[in-house]
Amino acid sequence: MLWHDGRLVEGTTVPFDLADRGLTLGDGVFDTALALGGRVAFEAAHVDRLTAAAAALGFPVAPDRIRAAMRALAATGERLAIRTTLTRGAGPRGLAPPADPAPTLFATAAPSAPGTAFAPLRLWPAQVRRNETSPTARLKSLGYLDAVVSAASARAAGFDEALFRNTGGAVACAGTGNVFAVFGATILTPPLTDGVLAGIVRAEILTAVAPGCGLICEERSLTPADLERADTVFLTNSLRLLAPVSAIGARAYPREHPIVARLAAALRARVATACGVPEDRVA
Amino acid sequence: MLWHDGRLVEGTTVPFDLADRGLTLGDGVFDTALALGGRVAFEAAHVDRLTAAAAALGFPVAPDRIRAAMRALAATGERLAIRTTLTRGAGPRGLAPPADPAPTLFATAAPSAPGTAFAPLRLWPAQVRRNETSPTARLKSLGYLDAVVSAASARAAGFDEALFRNTGGAVACAGTGNVFAVFGATILTPPLTDGVLAGIVRAEILTAVAPGCGLICEERSLTPADLERADTVFLTNSLRLLAPVSAIGARAYPREHPIVARLAAALRARVATACGVPEDRVA
Repeated sequence: MLWHDGRLVEGTTVPFDLADRGLTLGDGVFDTALALGGRVAFEAAHVDRLTAAAAALGFPVAPDRIRAAMRALAATGERLAIRTTLTRGAGPRGLAPPADPAPTLFATAAPSAPGTAFAPLRLWPAQVRRNETSPTARLKSLGYLDAVVSAASARAAGFDEALFRNTGGAVACAGTGNVFAVFGATILTPPLTDGVLAGIVRAEILTAVAPGCGLICEERSLTPADLERADTVFLTNSLRLLAPVSAIGARAYPREHPIVARLAAALRARVATACGVPEDRVA
Repeated sequence: MLWHDGRLVEGTTVPFDLADRGLTLGDGVFDTALALGGRVAFEAAHVDRLTAAAAALGFPVAPDRIRAAMRALAATGERLAIRTTLTRGAGPRGLAPPADPAPTLFATAAPSAPGTAFAPLRLWPAQVRRNETSPTARLKSLGYLDAVVSAASARAAGFDEALFRNTGGAVACAGTGNVFAVFGATILTPPLTDGVLAGIVRAEILTAVAPGCGLICEERSLTPADLERADTVFLTNSLRLLAPVSAIGARAYPREHPIVARLAAALRARVATACGVPEDRVA
């Protein structure tokens, strides 16, 4: 199901301007959200992040339109992955944006398979580095080709996801999620300045879920050696929610860990509350 | 003018699948070529580069279709910039490409203003680094947001174009062109492994134009200090052809330099021959 130009449309093919800079230059951003029982989990955070990303790129968007798109799609199913795409709109030839851009907004909903959330993952250390010198590294920009290429390499090597270091060698994030490392009762995740996407669930863990569990959770640069010696590692994103990491390359981690289990239970409860569904529906 | 689905179309709006991975993930490549008098300059090189880029990304394209698109558009005007876009086509949610991709190919033509070619440029040293660790740095991939952001910064600082270093600090390329530095009778340009787009005019200079002028032209990593001490610097791309660089930041270069003039004259002659037009039409 597609939301386009203010209304729901069957299929995904519509009249579209091929001079749209989202298509020609990757000049735009997107968002992926989970909707359960007709409601988007952490809706305000998703709307705010897209709005802030457009502002960072210097084009306007009405948060109300983003919210309307997400809500219209959320109402079409019980368990949906909603992807919202926002571009600077059409422009003339060349890199310079039009003086008065007319941004493009559309969104799609697809069923999110039960069992996606909380399922363990094996990460593959990517050769390609995440470029923390670029402000776009902290945005969910449309230029996802490095993640596409590295995910293919990860799958070819028998892993689920690629894990990126930045150009300085520090751990950044996975192709589609943030990483956290557990050391005793302390949980660390790289700061955004290390080239990290500002994940919605990442912020939930940092500011609400971990403190609510009585755990210390901080932003700190991490080296691959830090991950080697961590008790365990987990990944967060808006569909997987909190995925235990069972391996990074040759280093295996325990499939079950009491701190990860506690955080997962608390996150599940928050998502259930946010969507107004029973906890057993968050799976 | 647009070439889409095998034929010429007025305007740029057509039915399009918003699940196209070129739009959703920057999963594709493009090419910009100059057409004069109905013929694309260095057509075979442009077709070959797009075909090789698709192969590098693991999806097929028929070179004949690319050539047909370029030729159909080239015939619509006297002096055109032709942009050809090739994506992996539509895919389901997520990063994994479809097993049997149906790539999307379209192209547009816009008038190329006389005076674009050979006009001098002022370059601004970009803060954002070019990520030479990514194989996509050597492709003209759709993810051009770093170049968009840096070009805006360059214009705000009173310059024409951004000049990128790579993550190791070596000179890479400009936002939309390759750089060459002149030292006596020797001309150097960074190797592709420094995160450099494989420019069509770059290859012409290296393999044909410079040797034809009796000059030594080699690929060599360059530092910003090397550019500081160079006699002069120039930029190449398919529309500007060979642009003298009159400044990089605070360092000014002579607006006229006999070696640059000789190379420009030889390149102009090659383009004229390639397009079958008089030399004074290459401007």
